[in-house]
Amino acid sequence: MMLVLLAAFALTGFSAPQFNPPPVLKWQEVAPGVWRTRVGKREKLTLLSAAEAEPNRGALALMPKVDAPPVDLGQSSGEMVETYAMARMPLQPKEKLFGMGLQMHGSDRREGIYHLQMDHYSKGVDRLHAPTPLYISSRGYAVFFNTARPCSIYAGVGNRLGDPNNPPARDRTTDPKWEAQPYSPSVEASVQAPGLEVYLFAGPTPIDAIRRYTLYCGGGALPPRWALGFWHRVPLAATAEDVLKEVAEFDKRGFPLDVLGLEPGWQSQAYPGSFVWSEKRFPNPAGFVAELAGRGVHVNLWENPYIAKTSPMFKPLESSFGSHTVWLGAAADLNVPKAAKIVREHHKQVGVDLGVSGYKIDEVDGVDFWLWPDHARFPSGLPGIEMRQVYGVLWQRELQRLFHDSGKRTFGLVRGSNGGATRFPFAIYSDTYNHQEYLTGITSAGLAGVMWCAEVRSAKNGEEWVRRMQTAVLSHIAQLNAWADGTKPWSFAGFEEPVRKAMEFRISLMPYLYTAFAEYHYEGTPVIRAMSLVDGGEETDQYLLGDDLLVAPMFAGVASRKVRLPKGNWCDYDTGEMVGNGQTIEIKPALDKIPVYVREGALIPTIAPQPRAGRNTKNTALIVRHYGNGPAEGRMYDDDGETFNQEKGSYAWYSLFSRDGTSGLLTTANKWTVGYDKIIWRHVGPSR
Amino acid sequence: MMLVLLAAFALTGFSAPQFNPPPVLKWQEVAPGVWRTRVGKREKLTLLSAAEAEPNRGALALMPKVDAPPVDLGQSSGEMVETYAMARMPLQPKEKLFGMGLQMHGSDRREGIYHLQMDHYSKGVDRLHAPTPLYISSRGYAVFFNTARPCSIYAGVGNRLGDPNNPPARDRTTDPKWEAQPYSPSVEASVQAPGLEVYLFAGPTPIDAIRRYTLYCGGGALPPRWALGFWHRVPLAATAEDVLKEVAEFDKRGFPLDVLGLEPGWQSQAYPGSFVWSEKRFPNPAGFVAELAGRGVHVNLWENPYIAKTSPMFKPLESSFGSHTVWLGAAADLNVPKAAKIVREHHKQVGVDLGVSGYKIDEVDGVDFWLWPDHARFPSGLPGIEMRQVYGVLWQRELQRLFHDSGKRTFGLVRGSNGGATRFPFAIYSDTYNHQEYLTGITSAGLAGVMWCAEVRSAKNGEEWVRRMQTAVLSHIAQLNAWADGTKPWSFAGFEEPVRKAMEFRISLMPYLYTAFAEYHYEGTPVIRAMSLVDGGEETDQYLLGDDLLVAPMFAGVASRKVRLPKGNWCDYDTGEMVGNGQTIEIKPALDKIPVYVREGALIPTIAPQPRAGRNTKNTALIVRHYGNGPAEGRMYDDDGETFNQEKGSYAWYSLFSRDGTSGLLTTANKWTVGYDKIIWRHVGPSR
Repeated sequence: MMLVLLAAFALTGFSAPQFNPPPVLKWQEVAPGVWRTRVGKREKLTLLSAAEAEPNRGALALMPKVDAPPVDLGQSSGEMVETYAMARMPLQPKEKLFGMGLQMHGSDRREGIYHLQMDHYSKGVDRLHAPTPLYISSRGYAVFFNTARPCSIYAGVGNRLGDPNNPPARDRTTDPKWEAQPYSPSVEASVQAPGLEVYLFAGPTPIDAIRRYTLYCGGGALPPRWALGFWHRVPLAATAEDVLKEVAEFDKRGFPLDVLGLEPGWQSQAYPGSFVWSEKRFPNPAGFVAELAGRGVHVNLWENPYIAKTSPMFKPLESSFGSHTVWLGAAADLNVPKAAKIVREHHKQVGVDLGVSGYKIDEVDGVDFWLWPDHARFPSGLPGIEMRQVYGVLWQRELQRLFHDSGKRTFGLVRGSNGGATRFPFAIYSDTYNHQEYLTGITSAGLAGVMWCAEVRSAKNGEEWVRRMQTAVLSHIAQLNAWADGTKPWSFAGFEEPVRKAMEFRISLMPYLYTAFAEYHYEGTPVIRAMSLVDGGEETDQYLLGDDLLVAPMFAGVASRKVRLPKGNWCDYDTGEMVGNGQTIEIKPALDKIPVYVREGALIPTIAPQPRAGRNTKNTALIVRHYGNGPAEGRMYDDDGETFNQEKGSYAWYSLFSRDGTSGLLTTANKWTVGYDKIIWRHVGPSR
Repeated sequence: MMLVLLAAFALTGFSAPQFNPPPVLKWQEVAPGVWRTRVGKREKLTLLSAAEAEPNRGALALMPKVDAPPVDLGQSSGEMVETYAMARMPLQPKEKLFGMGLQMHGSDRREGIYHLQMDHYSKGVDRLHAPTPLYISSRGYAVFFNTARPCSIYAGVGNRLGDPNNPPARDRTTDPKWEAQPYSPSVEASVQAPGLEVYLFAGPTPIDAIRRYTLYCGGGALPPRWALGFWHRVPLAATAEDVLKEVAEFDKRGFPLDVLGLEPGWQSQAYPGSFVWSEKRFPNPAGFVAELAGRGVHVNLWENPYIAKTSPMFKPLESSFGSHTVWLGAAADLNVPKAAKIVREHHKQVGVDLGVSGYKIDEVDGVDFWLWPDHARFPSGLPGIEMRQVYGVLWQRELQRLFHDSGKRTFGLVRGSNGGATRFPFAIYSDTYNHQEYLTGITSAGLAGVMWCAEVRSAKNGEEWVRRMQTAVLSHIAQLNAWADGTKPWSFAGFEEPVRKAMEFRISLMPYLYTAFAEYHYEGTPVIRAMSLVDGGEETDQYLLGDDLLVAPMFAGVASRKVRLPKGNWCDYDTGEMVGNGQTIEIKPALDKIPVYVREGALIPTIAPQPRAGRNTKNTALIVRHYGNGPAEGRMYDDDGETFNQEKGSYAWYSLFSRDGTSGLLTTANKWTVGYDKIIWRHVGPSR
């Protein structure tokens, strides 16, 4: 025995140079299946503290029990290297990695380097609208670097000197096996900062790991019901009169509309902003908002959070401004409680008290030319670079606080978010405008703990307009953003019907979508699930929407596309016909057809299309669609759809069951009672 | 009087919010016309300390006297902001800025942001082969940030809150004068580091400012004379026999050749490297190098400085290795004196003692995938990011030290360099291979304190091959790099003659080029002068080579190009005909014609083309070309061309004078006496 050991020692000594990894990290289990460690000092601000993330411990306790960390933590290591804090995690040879923020291309993140920084995405993998330093492993765990600094992650790239897991070094001149990028057995991450906190979230599956992450951040956002309808934004300089006419036009033409977004022109000055209504374009703001409310339409206001001297907020906020301006407007430091309160109170007075339903927070991401420099100084002590990573998070936090204090739920848009911010009801949007990238954004969002609004703006032709709209209506927010050119859903002559059909499909899915958001809120499951979370697939042009719908949007200019069906039988949404199980099919959808497939045995709660999706569910019939020829099950969430009374228990999870789709059962153990007017059970599929 | 003051005060108080710039910086004049300041702490390593730059105070004392700083230093400011050190310099409204490292596009750097980091250039303005944090102002001064960290420079971008020089804030919705990027009155720069040192170099002109910078770094490199000839690199796996055959082929075909470069295959293992000769391909290295020396050809050896376990240097260097490998090879920390000595001694034994003339230091720049991570640990205490900024500088420094100790001058290639390294005789090269970018690189190099080898490798057709060669022969090193495909100067059938003519032109310019390098070495003037240094022009497709030649290379695929002639009369190099003065001309050069123009009244020292440019000037006639119809003047430098005896005074500056080009005077006050065999005075131009 001794001889054997000696031989092994001698062999190691002979074959490898000295291997001196950093010290092994010490981890602490901070919630069920959640471990934390820290290198260096605790930072003043982190992503979790910026978002004021409080774990939903009740929900975490209901997750699958985990007996041991999902990674050999004895193989983790970390240390301070001069001004850098670094951590190292082991990787198995065949392990795949996903995530690394709101990426716009592909999904396989192994053998990549990510210098994750907040920016207006234009290309590459580093500068993103949501640079969430989080990766998910195909082995069923996730790692989150809780830092508000730009974090560099070397994912299966790089080899430490003497690491026994390194491949052999070869000769390029003579050895055909020589590799430009040798296999690497680790992920290393670093920040230039006094410290770095790392979280490990157990699965057992990848989607469980994301659930734990989301629940640890406090759960996902629960939007008001109306926010799941259709959104439309009017041009820059639209007046109250223009807006009312436009809303009337939607109604006259029979296109659904729930939210009307005003762009910079609602303010008396913008870029930088006065944050007060333009007397010229909106002489009676309260009357205007009330008029729209009367018509069932909610108003969303654009703002970029840079304050002009003409704003009544300017003087009161002066002591909390950063050193540099953005479009010559001042940037308030919302880490200063007094400043946050001034901002909330002003928004209450000018917006929320009038009935404004939410905000679009623009330009919090970049580009460098527009924002402050990395070294800008903010009163709370943050340098510009760190403030930039979380500026959009801080504005989401304070606006959400305002709406919560007002007892009304909100849903809005933001151009930059980050890790930790899962509970804020804001979806990211972008100026980048490539349909494929948008679709990748939809699938990436759930891997970065954010939501993505694949808004439509324009198109080269009617076909593209329809195909883009079909993608938009199956994203977190279904929006037409006509701020620049005034496009309307019916702008492409001859293509009105497929566009209307797509918008109506969105509306009809409202109970199903609302349930998917509730699953995000209460259970941490992303509304939109990348194939990597479903079954480890790498596709970014198809995804699951909620539990049971497989969505595979079509692009303009092509006649067909491929769809990979996960295991299980899948049915066409419209016809109920079985299309396959586990194989890749090629489809040729007609222009008005959105390729959506339903898991056999699923019950999909829907409503009939209507002009306002967000109106109370009373007086509305629930239509439960039944797929397959056997018994089917489903679930549905409901509450009042607009207050925070669900926090006090006023909500219900319903169990749905139907043997054959001709009738069924809807049961609940919760106390929420107001619900749909009646239930229609509808078998979808060839008659039996 | 008092009333007026009060009124002004009141107006200021009313019109602008509080302006709190950082504290004014305190500057110290550290050499004539050179000022220095520091924010925060002194860093362990800076660009100047990495290069061991020692000011040439004698040469600085000879520069134009400067009575006051060229910038209002009362407007400079700086401070520590959390982990950032930042400095701010004022900008005048019409001031132009140039420089910001070895940029590959354009020249006007105002209204740009530069996150200057060492990398293999691929696109953008941030990651460069020479990220020298230096800018030159059209107002005749230069600013250098002496930091070995990535430096971010915001050049006329960004506005501080309340700065009275800010433009007014406008309303985007209604004001057509609204600007997406408002005018900015300053340059701000920052590093994430404990401190930042800033230098200000006075002019009075922009080129004087660059001279002061270069002389403060110790002056420019002085190459051996042979290095100004033609360089050729053989394929990866070439053997000694292959090389000797290739040299013979050059001679047989009558193409000049001074330097023969061996690629990775000279080593027994490479990527990572053994740093010893391959016994198989080079069984008798000493004999091989001697054989080539006998034929007048100098050997240059490729290496990338990552050490394989099979190298005899591995064990001795082991304690000085960084934490991470590059292609599984170890990276020695040359800040450890013992390690630097081991490296020098090994190179002496395996290379210099055999007669090897210099090195090509590959892969010291990036990309991220190939180098160590930012947080890598090096024994001298540097983090990876800082080591990466200077790794190429450290290897240049130690190889230059070795050659200096050996009494032989060297000239070589390096893939990454940085500020402070002007004295090292290495030119940068790249894998990026766009002819326009290469030409921009030639003009940018002098603004970054480096040299650029616009090597040729391949071409789509014969025309492009010729045009590329014509650019290569008028860059710092004229090289054909055939490592990958074995291309030779004569590889494009039917295009041999224009290629030979270009190569011979290079050779004929040797005395003129050597003088231009001497001006770089002794006086700090870049060999190749961007138009921005000549007269503030923004062209990057033409430049001055030395004092008197205007070069405007031609690109393939176009029939004509424009050339902007600076003020003064300019003559065609070949015909002597006057082509213009101060205007832009359109030219249609024949394929074998390199558009080169000579300042009227200039004398250009040349030689007849010959197979080896670098042989001793004895037995060679000096041919002085005279341009214009009046008296002409010039200067010429000479020394033994290969030792460091010029440091002990063995060199001469000659004054040239000729009334009409039929005869002339060559005079010197220096003691160097060995010179050209005879002088031929030659008037170039229409006969009078």
